[in-house]
Amino acid sequence: MIPARNAPGPRALVPFVSVADMMRLVHHIGLRPMIRALADRIEDDFRRWEKFDKSPRVPAHSAEGVVELMPTTDGTTYGFKFVNGHPGNARDGLQTVTAFGMLADMATGYPVLLSEMTLLTALRTAAMSALAARWLAPPTTTMAIIGTGAQSEFQALAFAEICGLAEVRLSDIDPGAVAKCARNLAGTGLRVIPCASPEEAILGAGIITTVTADKRRATILSDNMVGPGVHLNAVGGDCPGKTELAPGILQRAAIFTEFTPQTRIEGEIQQLAPDHPVTELWQVITGRAPGRTAPAQITLFDSVGFAIEDFAALAYVRDEALKAGTFTPLDLVADPDDPRDLYGMLMRSGPLPA
Amino acid sequence: MIPARNAPGPRALVPFVSVADMMRLVHHIGLRPMIRALADRIEDDFRRWEKFDKSPRVPAHSAEGVVELMPTTDGTTYGFKFVNGHPGNARDGLQTVTAFGMLADMATGYPVLLSEMTLLTALRTAAMSALAARWLAPPTTTMAIIGTGAQSEFQALAFAEICGLAEVRLSDIDPGAVAKCARNLAGTGLRVIPCASPEEAILGAGIITTVTADKRRATILSDNMVGPGVHLNAVGGDCPGKTELAPGILQRAAIFTEFTPQTRIEGEIQQLAPDHPVTELWQVITGRAPGRTAPAQITLFDSVGFAIEDFAALAYVRDEALKAGTFTPLDLVADPDDPRDLYGMLMRSGPLPA
Repeated sequence: MIPARNAPGPRALVPFVSVADMMRLVHHIGLRPMIRALADRIEDDFRRWEKFDKSPRVPAHSAEGVVELMPTTDGTTYGFKFVNGHPGNARDGLQTVTAFGMLADMATGYPVLLSEMTLLTALRTAAMSALAARWLAPPTTTMAIIGTGAQSEFQALAFAEICGLAEVRLSDIDPGAVAKCARNLAGTGLRVIPCASPEEAILGAGIITTVTADKRRATILSDNMVGPGVHLNAVGGDCPGKTELAPGILQRAAIFTEFTPQTRIEGEIQQLAPDHPVTELWQVITGRAPGRTAPAQITLFDSVGFAIEDFAALAYVRDEALKAGTFTPLDLVADPDDPRDLYGMLMRSGPLPA
Repeated sequence: MIPARNAPGPRALVPFVSVADMMRLVHHIGLRPMIRALADRIEDDFRRWEKFDKSPRVPAHSAEGVVELMPTTDGTTYGFKFVNGHPGNARDGLQTVTAFGMLADMATGYPVLLSEMTLLTALRTAAMSALAARWLAPPTTTMAIIGTGAQSEFQALAFAEICGLAEVRLSDIDPGAVAKCARNLAGTGLRVIPCASPEEAILGAGIITTVTADKRRATILSDNMVGPGVHLNAVGGDCPGKTELAPGILQRAAIFTEFTPQTRIEGEIQQLAPDHPVTELWQVITGRAPGRTAPAQITLFDSVGFAIEDFAALAYVRDEALKAGTFTPLDLVADPDDPRDLYGMLMRSGPLPA
């Protein structure tokens, strides 16, 4: 047993937001208000884009998928997310994407938050999509969602909360997934239209969200499916070799990215020349570049997810979880009374080694 | 409250080795046997060096210090460490270096271990130093340690366990730190000689370990202090702008590194031309390059720490902690019954949002 005098001090204890804690926090705040708050927090951080370190994510690929580290800092706080993407996981009853993350104080290097991010990534991804649409989409109350997996309900509710969405049209290669999404969205106030095909889903939709999980070049939307004036929210194409849109669509669209050097590698635009013109969304938000310039323009948010979004989400969760008490203190940092005496702390915690 | 039907399943629970768990594990195995086992595990992984992904660490610098991510994978398992280095922390009663890390399964991306690594890094750093000396040092029973901070006792005991060290000679700019180290090493079987200066400490020492924490170019050892035949174990110089040895010593020494591209940036050899010849230790261990070639040769292990060492340490801790039960299950991964139904899991855990 560890004697009481070695009980961890307050600096050793890092607030940990578990999956159960995160669910409690969502219910405490409310899902839609929380998505709105996340979108606002991301927008605030995009406004101070130039303060952030912008490194590309650090991936490790295998035959089955990818694991990635996504670090960033605003100079005061540091954050990173660990996230995987394994399209075959669902077949084995596992999540395609799971994640956790942390924040640390840049002045001391000490961790100040550890959090589950599987749920949080779903929330912030939906918040990010709706935030981009707030700046780019045409006036519309109808969205198609192609791919009704784990992210789909969050997308629908984010667009309802932030963009005034009233009708969502659902399509998936698996009718069971459409039924699941429709069931989950019943009673949310959205008009939900299950559709038999992507072609049916996009009828009358001012926004088309693609959020499939295949790790390969797929053509979820072919060129002739996308008419003038539509906003495309391409969420599923997010790693090298994984895309959802026919190249012809990209040629006709005004393309908006998060952090272009990363999107060139991971986004839909990996199908284009490396100098194909694109606009970063922070430039639109800060007024340095135009968003949508004409009603007939096709706008495309080529979303791959960027570390600043996770940073904003973690900072929000830290504030709210500490207020709401939805966290567990975790004995993560060795904290000897004398910082030079790590050995002494260890030895005083038990018998001398032989 | 979270209803019982949403209690996390086994896949959601990741074994977490807290600081208290790690201390229990060290006492269960014994400090010296554990350091030896870590050295053996690192040596095994260095023998299969070419199987590992070798990316340089990913740093974020501030005025006060650095935080870093150190990822690697052998193709089957993925691991990374988060670690900080903040020389001013001790002044404020904080650790200079704290760390935690994790392992994940490359086939699914799911985390399989989360662990404190402040203590574990101290153990593996000492194990690595002694492992390098096993291959490079002259026959000797005497070592000088310049810098008796948090790492010093672990270094002394690792060399006692692995290299037959009998006498350790201690020096630090702070006499209190020397007294602390000497006190901690009393009763370990080592002959401990507190010294008033580095010059006194190195008298008769076949191995000189430098392990100071200043974040600047310091000259802990000047050129005239290092005679023929000595093995230098340079642990403290480990980031850009932070070195401990006079350049003249480097010119006279046979230099051994962990992963050269990283050491060129962070190690003592940042003071040398970028093409100055060095040998990676794995090449010595696998017989592809000679270690020490003459009794009068000065050998230098320019240690900065590399991700494969942390990977080996985490893999060892996972095996041993699961056997010994020194871990806590952590609710880190959202694990809905239907992997496509993350939203349903969230909503069933509480009231419907307004």
